[in-house]
Amino acid sequence: GKLYVGYYIGVKWLFSLLIGIGTGLAAVLINISVENFAGWKYELTFSIIQKSYLAGFIVYVLFNLLLVFSSVYIVTRFAPAAAGSGIPEIKGYLNGVDTHGILLFRTLIGKILGSIGSVGSGLALGKEGPLVHTGACIASLLGQGGSTNYHLSSRWFQVFKSDRDRRDLVTCGCAAGVAAAFRAPVGGVLFALEEVTSWWRSQLMWRVFFTSAVVAVVVRTAMGWCKSGNCGHFGSGGFIIWDISDGQEDYSFSELLPMAVIGVIGGLLGALFNQLTLFITSWRRNYLHKKGNRVKIIEVCLLSMITSVISFGLPLLRSCSPCPEPEPNSDIDCPRPPGMYGNYVNDDAIRNLFSAKTVHEFSAQSLLTFLVMFYTLAVVTFGTAVPAGQFVPGIMIGSTYGRLVGMFVVSMYKKSNIEEGTSKVASMTIVSVIHISLLFRFMHLYALLGAASFLGGSMRMTVSLCVIMVEITNNLKLLPLIMLVLLISKAVGDAFNEGLYEEQARLRGIPLLESRPKNQMRKMTAKEGCGNRKLETITARDAERHMHLNEAHFYFDNHTCIFFPGCLRYPVCNVGKATLKVHQIASGALIVSLLYCCFMFEHHILLVMVHSITLQHLTDTLLIFNMWKVVCFPRVVKIADVVSILRGNKHNGFPVIDHSRNGETLVIGLILRSHLLVLLQSKVDFQHSPLPCETRGGHMPIRHNFSEFVKPVSTKGISINDIHLSSDDLEMYIDLAPFLNPSPYIVPEDMSLTKVYNLFRQLGLRHIFVVPRPSHVIGLITRKDLLIEDNEGSAAIELQSTSVRAH
Amino acid sequence: GKLYVGYYIGVKWLFSLLIGIGTGLAAVLINISVENFAGWKYELTFSIIQKSYLAGFIVYVLFNLLLVFSSVYIVTRFAPAAAGSGIPEIKGYLNGVDTHGILLFRTLIGKILGSIGSVGSGLALGKEGPLVHTGACIASLLGQGGSTNYHLSSRWFQVFKSDRDRRDLVTCGCAAGVAAAFRAPVGGVLFALEEVTSWWRSQLMWRVFFTSAVVAVVVRTAMGWCKSGNCGHFGSGGFIIWDISDGQEDYSFSELLPMAVIGVIGGLLGALFNQLTLFITSWRRNYLHKKGNRVKIIEVCLLSMITSVISFGLPLLRSCSPCPEPEPNSDIDCPRPPGMYGNYVNDDAIRNLFSAKTVHEFSAQSLLTFLVMFYTLAVVTFGTAVPAGQFVPGIMIGSTYGRLVGMFVVSMYKKSNIEEGTSKVASMTIVSVIHISLLFRFMHLYALLGAASFLGGSMRMTVSLCVIMVEITNNLKLLPLIMLVLLISKAVGDAFNEGLYEEQARLRGIPLLESRPKNQMRKMTAKEGCGNRKLETITARDAERHMHLNEAHFYFDNHTCIFFPGCLRYPVCNVGKATLKVHQIASGALIVSLLYCCFMFEHHILLVMVHSITLQHLTDTLLIFNMWKVVCFPRVVKIADVVSILRGNKHNGFPVIDHSRNGETLVIGLILRSHLLVLLQSKVDFQHSPLPCETRGGHMPIRHNFSEFVKPVSTKGISINDIHLSSDDLEMYIDLAPFLNPSPYIVPEDMSLTKVYNLFRQLGLRHIFVVPRPSHVIGLITRKDLLIEDNEGSAAIELQSTSVRAH
Repeated sequence: GKLYVGYYIGVKWLFSLLIGIGTGLAAVLINISVENFAGWKYELTFSIIQKSYLAGFIVYVLFNLLLVFSSVYIVTRFAPAAAGSGIPEIKGYLNGVDTHGILLFRTLIGKILGSIGSVGSGLALGKEGPLVHTGACIASLLGQGGSTNYHLSSRWFQVFKSDRDRRDLVTCGCAAGVAAAFRAPVGGVLFALEEVTSWWRSQLMWRVFFTSAVVAVVVRTAMGWCKSGNCGHFGSGGFIIWDISDGQEDYSFSELLPMAVIGVIGGLLGALFNQLTLFITSWRRNYLHKKGNRVKIIEVCLLSMITSVISFGLPLLRSCSPCPEPEPNSDIDCPRPPGMYGNYVNDDAIRNLFSAKTVHEFSAQSLLTFLVMFYTLAVVTFGTAVPAGQFVPGIMIGSTYGRLVGMFVVSMYKKSNIEEGTSKVASMTIVSVIHISLLFRFMHLYALLGAASFLGGSMRMTVSLCVIMVEITNNLKLLPLIMLVLLISKAVGDAFNEGLYEEQARLRGIPLLESRPKNQMRKMTAKEGCGNRKLETITARDAERHMHLNEAHFYFDNHTCIFFPGCLRYPVCNVGKATLKVHQIASGALIVSLLYCCFMFEHHILLVMVHSITLQHLTDTLLIFNMWKVVCFPRVVKIADVVSILRGNKHNGFPVIDHSRNGETLVIGLILRSHLLVLLQSKVDFQHSPLPCETRGGHMPIRHNFSEFVKPVSTKGISINDIHLSSDDLEMYIDLAPFLNPSPYIVPEDMSLTKVYNLFRQLGLRHIFVVPRPSHVIGLITRKDLLIEDNEGSAAIELQSTSVRAH
Repeated sequence: GKLYVGYYIGVKWLFSLLIGIGTGLAAVLINISVENFAGWKYELTFSIIQKSYLAGFIVYVLFNLLLVFSSVYIVTRFAPAAAGSGIPEIKGYLNGVDTHGILLFRTLIGKILGSIGSVGSGLALGKEGPLVHTGACIASLLGQGGSTNYHLSSRWFQVFKSDRDRRDLVTCGCAAGVAAAFRAPVGGVLFALEEVTSWWRSQLMWRVFFTSAVVAVVVRTAMGWCKSGNCGHFGSGGFIIWDISDGQEDYSFSELLPMAVIGVIGGLLGALFNQLTLFITSWRRNYLHKKGNRVKIIEVCLLSMITSVISFGLPLLRSCSPCPEPEPNSDIDCPRPPGMYGNYVNDDAIRNLFSAKTVHEFSAQSLLTFLVMFYTLAVVTFGTAVPAGQFVPGIMIGSTYGRLVGMFVVSMYKKSNIEEGTSKVASMTIVSVIHISLLFRFMHLYALLGAASFLGGSMRMTVSLCVIMVEITNNLKLLPLIMLVLLISKAVGDAFNEGLYEEQARLRGIPLLESRPKNQMRKMTAKEGCGNRKLETITARDAERHMHLNEAHFYFDNHTCIFFPGCLRYPVCNVGKATLKVHQIASGALIVSLLYCCFMFEHHILLVMVHSITLQHLTDTLLIFNMWKVVCFPRVVKIADVVSILRGNKHNGFPVIDHSRNGETLVIGLILRSHLLVLLQSKVDFQHSPLPCETRGGHMPIRHNFSEFVKPVSTKGISINDIHLSSDDLEMYIDLAPFLNPSPYIVPEDMSLTKVYNLFRQLGLRHIFVVPRPSHVIGLITRKDLLIEDNEGSAAIELQSTSVRAH
C-alpha cells in the first residue's frame, strides 16, 4: 500500500545516508591506519639509521614485508575476491554481470585490511580503487539486508528485491568510494555515472549526489576531529589533498605546444601501461597464479623487498643537490635523510611534485630514473594478490614526466634567452632572471597536467577525471588546460587499445557492453544477432547430449522438422523451397551454410536428408542448431523435462509458450533459470495434473515469498546439480504462469542489431525476445499518450474498473 | 564508403569546434557590448549628476529606455521566438518537440542583439539563458548547413541528415552557451547532460566536453586580448566571474542550522517564484500579448522606466552609512555616488554581495528593501518580450537573503556573546571582537549559499548547478555545503511545484517527458496507454469529418465492424461475447464504457447497434473510437486515400501493413507524415498500377535525395493543404515500401506502461507500435550475443553472403 511505498522510499534514502557514512568511516579508518603505520616505520627507521645504515635498511625492509605479508595473507586465505582494484568487477556488476564473491562481507573486510597493509608498505599502488570497491560492498550488503553467511541480516531492511534497486545502491557506493578517496564529492558522482554505470537515470543522480555529500561531511568531520591530535600521525593536511590553488593562473600561447606534448606522452605511456599490465596479468593468471596461494604470497613479498630496496637505495645513488635557499615557511626539509625518500607512494611525494617550492629538489636525471623505476614497479605490482589502486601511481608517473617536460621547457627558454642576449656574461640580466624564476613557478602546473594526461591515457575518463583533478588540487583556473590535455591523451590512447578497466574486465571474462555498438551491427538484423554464441563453448559431448534431449523438448511447428540418424521420431514434412539443396550436401561446412541459408529463409530448420552423416557432421550441424535454437517451456511442464533442459544448457532465460483456445501458440513470458531452480528446490508448487491450475475469480495462492527468488549477490547461487528430486517428483508437473515475467522486451526479427544493442544497453536488459513481424498493430504510443495528467489518469482507472476483463 | 564515414566524423568534430568558437565569440560580443553600454551610461549620468540630479535621472531613464526599446523592437518585429530565456524550448527540442521558429537564423540574430539591449538597460534579467539559446541556434544552423532562407547554406556541410545528429549538435551548443556564459566549461557539460537532454550517451559526452573546452579557450583568449584595453569598458575581472577563493574555508557545526534555514528559504522562495511567474506568464499570454506587438513594446518600456526609477531612487531613500575604514586594496569606493548603485543586475553588485570586504556596505534594512523590490521586478520582468535569463536575477535574490541570514547569525552571535559576558560594558573584549570580525568575514559565504539555494529551489538542478557555482566562485572548499543546501532547497521546492523550465515548458504546450514515469503507469498496460489522447482536442466537427472518412479508410479485420447510423456500409458480424451488452446502451457515457470494455476484450471495436443514437452519442463514440483508432496504410495506397487520411487527423506516424502470400497481414513498417508530404509534393513516385513495383534483382531506382525528407528545423514544414494535386494525381497509387522505417520499436500489448515509458524516454523515441503477443520466439538475444568479436563478425558476414535470401 501507500505506507509501504513511503517506507520503501524512506529506506532508500536511509541507505544512501548509511552508505555515505559507512564509506566515509572506512576511508578514514584506512587513512588513519596507513598514515600511522607509515609514520611508525619512518620514525623507527630514522632513529636506527642514526647509528647504522644497514640496520635501518633491514628494519625498513622487514617492516614493509610484515605489512605486505599480512595483507596478502588475509586476501589469499580469506577473501580472494579482494585482490586488485575491484573497479572492473564492479563495472561488470553494474553492466549486468555478477562476478563470484565480489560483493561479499568477507571481501569487504579483506579489502579494508588488505589495503591498509599494501598501501602502508609502500608498494607502487594506491588506495582509491579499493575504496570504490569498499563502498560498493557496503552498499550491496545494505541492499540485501546484511550478510546471511554471518547471520548479520535483518528482515526489516530486505526491501530491495529487484536487481535494479541493488544496482542503484551499488552505484551510490561507487560514488561514495571516489568521494571518500579523493575528498571529491562531485567527482564521485560523475565517476559513478560516467565510468561505472552503463545506464543513467536522473533520479539516481539525485541520490548519488546525496550520498557523496554525506561522505564529504563525514570525512571532513573526522579530519576536523583528527586535527586535534587524536589520530597519531594522521591529521595534517587540509580537506583538499594537494592544494595548489596559490599557484599562477596565466599561461601563454607558446606553452600550449609543450602541453600538447604532455598530452601525447600521456596517451602513449598510458596505452603502453594498459598493454603491459594486460600481458603481465594474463601471464600471471595462466601460469603463476595457478600454482596456488603460496606462489602468490611469495611473489608479493619479493616485490615488496625489491620496492623497499629501490626506494631506499635510489636516493643514495645520486648526490644530494644542496638546498639552494632555506625556506622557513616550507614544510619540506631539504636535503632530507635518505630514508625519508622511501615511501614514494605517499601523498607527500606528490605534494612535492606539484609544489612550486621544490624547484631545485628534483634534478632531471633523478626524475628520469625515478620515472623508469616507478613505471616498471607499477606495471609489475598491478595484478598481484593485494588490493591495489592505479590512481595514485598514475598521478606519480604523470606528474614526474610532466615535471620533466616543464624542466625541458624552462631550459629551452633559458637557452633561447641566452642566445638572444648581447653577451654570455651580460645575458643573465635581472629581467630574464625574474622571468625564469617565474617559469620555475609554473613547473608544478606541468606536473599537474602530466598527471591528468597519464590518467586520461590509461583510464580514458573525461569529465569525471577532470573534476577529480580540479577537486584534489583546488585549482579551477587550469580547468581548460586539463580538458585539452585529457582530450589529447584520450584520443592518443584510444588509437592503441581500450581503457585500463575495460581491458582488465575483458581479460577476466566479464562481458562489458561498450557504450557504442560495433559498426558491423549496422548491417545485421536481430535474428542474425541471436546466434552469436561462441562455437568453442560447445563440445561434441554437448552435442551428443542435445541429441537425446531434442527427442522430447525442442519445439517444432508443422512446417519444421529435423532429422537425425538414429532417432527417426519426426516425420518428413513439407519444407518448401529448402529441399532443392538437400542432395548436394557433402561436408559439415556445407551443412552449416545450408542450415544458415535455410534459417534465413523461413525461420525453420532444414530437413537434413543424409543418412551417411558422420558424428563430425552431426556435431557441426548441432553446433549451428544450438546456436539458433530457442529452448522453450510450455506453460505446464513436467519436472523431469525442466531438469533435463536445465542440465542440457547454460541459458539463463527461457521463453514460456502457451496454447490459446483456438489452437494458436502464444508467448506468455520469460522464466529465469534461477527462479526455476528455486521452484525445483522448494517443491511446493508441484502438481499431479498436467493442466494449468486456473483458479478463476481469485489469484493463485502465493506460497512463495518474493525475496526467495532474489539471488544473493556475488554467490554462485544454487545449481541444478545441487537439487535432489525423487523419481516421484520427476513425474509431477509445474505451472509456470505465476512465476514468469509476463512482458519481456521484444524486437522484430529484422530490426537492425545496432538498434537492439542500444535498447539492451540503455535499459540494462539481460534478455530480449526476437519475434516474427507482427500481423497487425493494436495501437501506436506517442509522446502525448505518455503525458498522463493526474486527473485523467484516475478517470481512466475508473473506466477500467467498470470493465469486465475476460481471458 | 569508408571515405564518407571519415568525412562524416571529421565534419562532426569540425562542427563541435565551430560551435565552440561561434558561441565563445557571441558571448564575448554580448559581454563587450553590454559592458560598454553600461559604462557609457554611467559616465554620462555621473557627469550630468554633478550639475543636476533631475537631469541625470532623466538621462539615465532615457538611456535605459532606448536600449530596451531597441531590444524589444528587434524581438517583436523581427524574431518573436527570441523572447524569453529559450531554455524551455531548447529542452523541448532535445526532448523531441520542435517549437516553431526557435532555431532559425533570425532568432539567433534577434537573441544576440536583443539581449545586448535588455541586459545593458539594467532590467532584472541576465544573459545566461539567451546565451544557451544562442549556442543552440549556432549549432542547429551549422547542422543544417546554414540558413536556407538567407541563401547562406552550403551543400558540403549538409551531412547531418538524421534528427539525432542534429539533436547532438544542439546539445553541444547548449553546453557551449553555459560554458561561455559562466566561463564554466565543466558546468556547461553537466548542464547540457543533466538539464536539457533527455537521453545520454557517452560518445556525446566526449564531444560536448570538447566543445566546452574550445569555448573556454576562446573566451579566455578574447579576455586576454581585452585586458590590453582594446574593448573599452570591458576588460577588468579575471576568468573566474566572482572569485572568492581567498575566503575562509572552515565552518563550525553550529553553522549548519542557519545554512539549512537558507536552504529552506531558497526552496520556498524558488517555488514561489516559479508559481508567480507561471501565473503572470499565463495571464500575459492569454490577455495582454494577444493585443499585438504594440502592447508588448509598451509593457517592456514601462517596466524599464519603473526599474530605472527604483534603481535610481532606492539608494536615495536610505541614508548612506559611512565607510568604516578606507581599504586601499579594495576596488570598491564607499560611499559611492547614488547613481552608481543603479545597475543592480551587474556583476559588480554580485561581487559586492559575495565579497568579504563589503561588510558595512549593506544594512539589513536596505538589503530587505532591495530583496522585495528586486524579487518583484524579477517576477514581473520574466515573460516579457525581450531575451531574458533567470540565472543572474536568481543569484542576486539568493545572495541578498543569504547575506541577511548571515547578518542575523552574526547579530545572534554578538548578542549571545554579550549576554554571556560579565558586564555589558566589558563584554566587548578583544577576543569576541576578533571572533565577530571573523564571522563578518564569513558573510560572503552565506551569500553564496543563498544564491545556490535560490537557484536550486527555482531551477531544481543538482550536479550541474553545484559545479557551476563552484566554477564561478572558485571556492571548492564550500562544495559540501553547497551540495547540502541544494539538496534541501530542491527537496523543499519539489514539494510545491516543478522546476522553472518544466513549468514554463508545460505552459507553452511543450510536452516534456519527465525522467520518472507517473506512478499510475505501473498498473496500466501498453494497450491502455495507446488511447490517452486528450478528449478536448477533438470537436464535434472532427467527429463529423471522421464519419465521412471511415467509410473508406479504417482498417477492419473480419471480426470487427462498427456501425454508424447513416452509413450502413459494413455488415453486422460476429462480435462474440460483446453482444450481450449492446441493448443496454442508453447514454453516451455508457457507450464510452462499453466501448472501453469491449476494447479490453479482444482488441476489437464493439458493434454499436443503436439506431436512435443522437449526434452527441455519436461524437462520444467517435471520440473514444478516435482515441484507440490506429490509422494504417496498405503498402500500395491510392493518392486520394493518402490525402484524405492526412487531412482527417493530425497523427505524425502511420503503420504500413502488407499482405503476405498466404493471405496473412504483416506490419511492414512505419511511415512518417512528413515523408508522405514530401512524396506527395514531388509526385515522382506515383504509379498507375495498384501493384507493388517489385524490381527483383535490383533496387528501386532512387529518385529522392535523402536530405529531401529531412524537415528543416524550427519551420512548420509543408502542410497537406499546401500541396495541390490534380484529379488525375488523386487516382494514382504509390508504393510506400521504399520509404518506410522497416523496424520501429514494438512492445507487446500487455507490457506495463512504466516499461514503455522508460523505453520511450531512454531511446528518445517518437512512436512505438503496440502489437499483440507474439505466437513464438525466433530467438533470444543475451549479453553474449552482443559481444561480437571483429573476426567472428566478418565470418558471419561471409556466411550471409553465400546464402540465398528469398522473399
